[in-house]
Amino acid sequence: MSEACLIVGVGDGLSASLARLFAAEGYALYLVARDTDKLENLAKDTGASLFKADATDVDAIRSIIAAIEGPLTVAIYNPSARSRGPITDLDPDDVRRSLDVTAFGSFVTAQAAAQRMLDNDGAVKGTILFTGASAGVKGFPQSAPFAMGKFAQRGLAQSMSRELHPKGIHIAWVNIDGAIRNPGTTESRPDAMLNPDAIARTYLELVRQDRSTWSNELALRPWVEGF
Amino acid sequence: MSEACLIVGVGDGLSASLARLFAAEGYALYLVARDTDKLENLAKDTGASLFKADATDVDAIRSIIAAIEGPLTVAIYNPSARSRGPITDLDPDDVRRSLDVTAFGSFVTAQAAAQRMLDNDGAVKGTILFTGASAGVKGFPQSAPFAMGKFAQRGLAQSMSRELHPKGIHIAWVNIDGAIRNPGTTESRPDAMLNPDAIARTYLELVRQDRSTWSNELALRPWVEGF
Amino acid sequence: MSEACLIVGVGDGLSASLARLFAAEGYALYLVARDTDKLENLAKDTGASLFKADATDVDAIRSIIAAIEGPLTVAIYNPSARSRGPITDLDPDDVRRSLDVTAFGSFVTAQAAAQRMLDNDGAVKGTILFTGASAGVKGFPQSAPFAMGKFAQRGLAQSMSRELHPKGIHIAWVNIDGAIRNPGTTESRPDAMLNPDAIARTYLELVRQDRSTWSNELALRPWVEGF
Amino acid sequence: MSEACLIVGVGDGLSASLARLFAAEGYALYLVARDTDKLENLAKDTGASLFKADATDVDAIRSIIAAIEGPLTVAIYNPSARSRGPITDLDPDDVRRSLDVTAFGSFVTAQAAAQRMLDNDGAVKGTILFTGASAGVKGFPQSAPFAMGKFAQRGLAQSMSRELHPKGIHIAWVNIDGAIRNPGTTESRPDAMLNPDAIARTYLELVRQDRSTWSNELALRPWVEGF
Repeated sequence: MSEACLIVGVGDGLSASLARLFAAEGYALYLVARDTDKLENLAKDTGASLFKADATDVDAIRSIIAAIEGPLTVAIYNPSARSRGPITDLDPDDVRRSLDVTAFGSFVTAQAAAQRMLDNDGAVKGTILFTGASAGVKGFPQSAPFAMGKFAQRGLAQSMSRELHPKGIHIAWVNIDGAIRNPGTTESRPDAMLNPDAIARTYLELVRQDRSTWSNELALRPWVEGF
Repeated sequence: MSEACLIVGVGDGLSASLARLFAAEGYALYLVARDTDKLENLAKDTGASLFKADATDVDAIRSIIAAIEGPLTVAIYNPSARSRGPITDLDPDDVRRSLDVTAFGSFVTAQAAAQRMLDNDGAVKGTILFTGASAGVKGFPQSAPFAMGKFAQRGLAQSMSRELHPKGIHIAWVNIDGAIRNPGTTESRPDAMLNPDAIARTYLELVRQDRSTWSNELALRPWVEGF
Repeated sequence: MSEACLIVGVGDGLSASLARLFAAEGYALYLVARDTDKLENLAKDTGASLFKADATDVDAIRSIIAAIEGPLTVAIYNPSARSRGPITDLDPDDVRRSLDVTAFGSFVTAQAAAQRMLDNDGAVKGTILFTGASAGVKGFPQSAPFAMGKFAQRGLAQSMSRELHPKGIHIAWVNIDGAIRNPGTTESRPDAMLNPDAIARTYLELVRQDRSTWSNELALRPWVEGF
Repeated sequence: MSEACLIVGVGDGLSASLARLFAAEGYALYLVARDTDKLENLAKDTGASLFKADATDVDAIRSIIAAIEGPLTVAIYNPSARSRGPITDLDPDDVRRSLDVTAFGSFVTAQAAAQRMLDNDGAVKGTILFTGASAGVKGFPQSAPFAMGKFAQRGLAQSMSRELHPKGIHIAWVNIDGAIRNPGTTESRPDAMLNPDAIARTYLELVRQDRSTWSNELALRPWVEGF
């Protein structure tokens, strides 16, 4: 039975790159998104199972994970929500939604994945990866909701890594420190954007890291990007 | 008309120390808590106005701030909620509540206070202080909800400081890196706990900081505490 | 016998502000600089004793501290050296000098001051303050030597705070995150520069902090300064 | 002509693992150590050229790099020096030596390597890696000299990454957050120590990272290690 890889938030360039790479590595893929219609081709190419769900829906995410066959060894959480503007103009409902999607949803997937992984055989049980952003390290002006969500997600990852590394689950928070190239479009400054295939390769390396050398936070940044 | 100081989350030792110190400095005090019964004596001593409200209730907090007479120049947010235990055992509702009280409530008070302060006269409009914790800098095991809330609060404070310092509102996040002494009880290791009167003095110094030397993050830690 | 305050690196605006403030607070002042001629007026105003020495000269600094009468309770280290330019163009001798003045000199003064302070009576023995810079938190391009020196100084302060706080010596590293106003000159953007008198007041507050709430790192930044 | 890989500080388990892995990947190896006698077998196995030199000797390091044939595309700096004990007991000469070996030596190798790499063809010129330690992120008590050296080294790496990434040289500082297993010895807690072969694989991955996703800092830590 193949090992399973769960990807929450499929739809953009990164999730597609992750799906293709992990499928090529032999994983059985489980893709979760709010809109699965546009994923039909990706599912056909990768043999993935598609699930339509909101990432903040505890019951839905738990059911999806319960339905996974074989050992779940990789779980990746990509969704985030943001609302920009002067702090005095923000709609509190948008702020709550941002916290919900970026932070609470991370907890929902990570908790359910960890519960499942702890039953796996062997000393190394699995890997849970969070797609972060520079907003989780530095709060930018006019972007408080995104800062709140990404900071919270990073706090979750730190707490989980300290708690679960000794139990054999590898946790890492990856700061995607820049914009991701969107395949199929023409960009004016491609060098200033991250190649999603390159991000996916780094995720795979994190999955493969020897447990004597587990990383729990790292940043990926285009070479020409100031920081 | 006296300057007004708003303290959200009154009830514990810190809020009482803050209330007494800022009252002694001539501020008109506005105290918000879910349970105001136990604050009667403090209100009598300090001349404070009491308001009963949940810190996450947007309409309630906005109404309280609208009712403040005179210029609001100091706003302090103290509440937090936590739930401890193995990540796999946590109740998602508790996690959401923790994010709500610690992070979303911080936003609600800070936004409404900032809206009000921007109307003040003068170059310096006011000071907004968040009572943080070491959990906002380091995510501890078996304490993911508190880490998520305090990290999010710190991200909010960073974003607001970058946005509002140039507009004359001083924002600071104070890492209370240890347990606070509770006056009236006997402690076994008083040296390892923070004196709430000393914390209050630091908050007052932040309010008084010259705008050419504003701090936006600092930690307060008992001398004997390892870190 | 008055308590003594040692200031190494006197000459610029900050050291003069520190000298005047601590003298006004009743401290007996000991000022160390490579060039003491220009300090005659300051010494006359503050009753300070002047010492001519290079801050990296172990024997000289030790002799000066040995000559202090009364209890030494405050020591402040200000000097730094930098050389700017593309990393490939830097002169290794300049890099070594930068490490020497900024980091090694910090150690020399701090070690000798700590040795002396540990003999003081009382639970709180003294305060040692390092004047840092944003370069100690973030390494900027074309400024590697300054980053090396200030990072090293911050590492020293962290190690000393963890070691000496429980022994009653308060250690703090202050990130002076901007340029300091130079009294007597006309600046084009005074709001973007730190007032040295305001910095000095923060240093005094650090000396006065209750030992249950000691800070070991903080940043001071002009309100209009981006970060 | 093979690409060249320079490793400074060969002798311990990590340098040997690095040498074997990069040799297997086709690199021409140049190994620098103060004592090269014990490296004869490693050199025979890997075809490496051996150079006897002190890492702080500017002229020696420059001569070695000048002698490299083919394009230098990888440079790795491993040496460090520490002296432990109460801050009040440390010998200033040991502190200076620690700064010299850990920080100044890093500059010497990195500067000479960068000068050489900038002449390489292609958009990506090379990779310079520093072997760091947790002491570069957190200053531990009774270990000030090591904290100073590793903090300074991290400041150097940050400055160089911001300056040289846009010029095509990838710079990374790797926090080796634990003790490295020493092959050939029996350890009581092997799980708590880093496997040097696993560290070497991470270094190779950093060399291979796509320039749209360059990391400049990361930590490697044994799964059972608290942090």
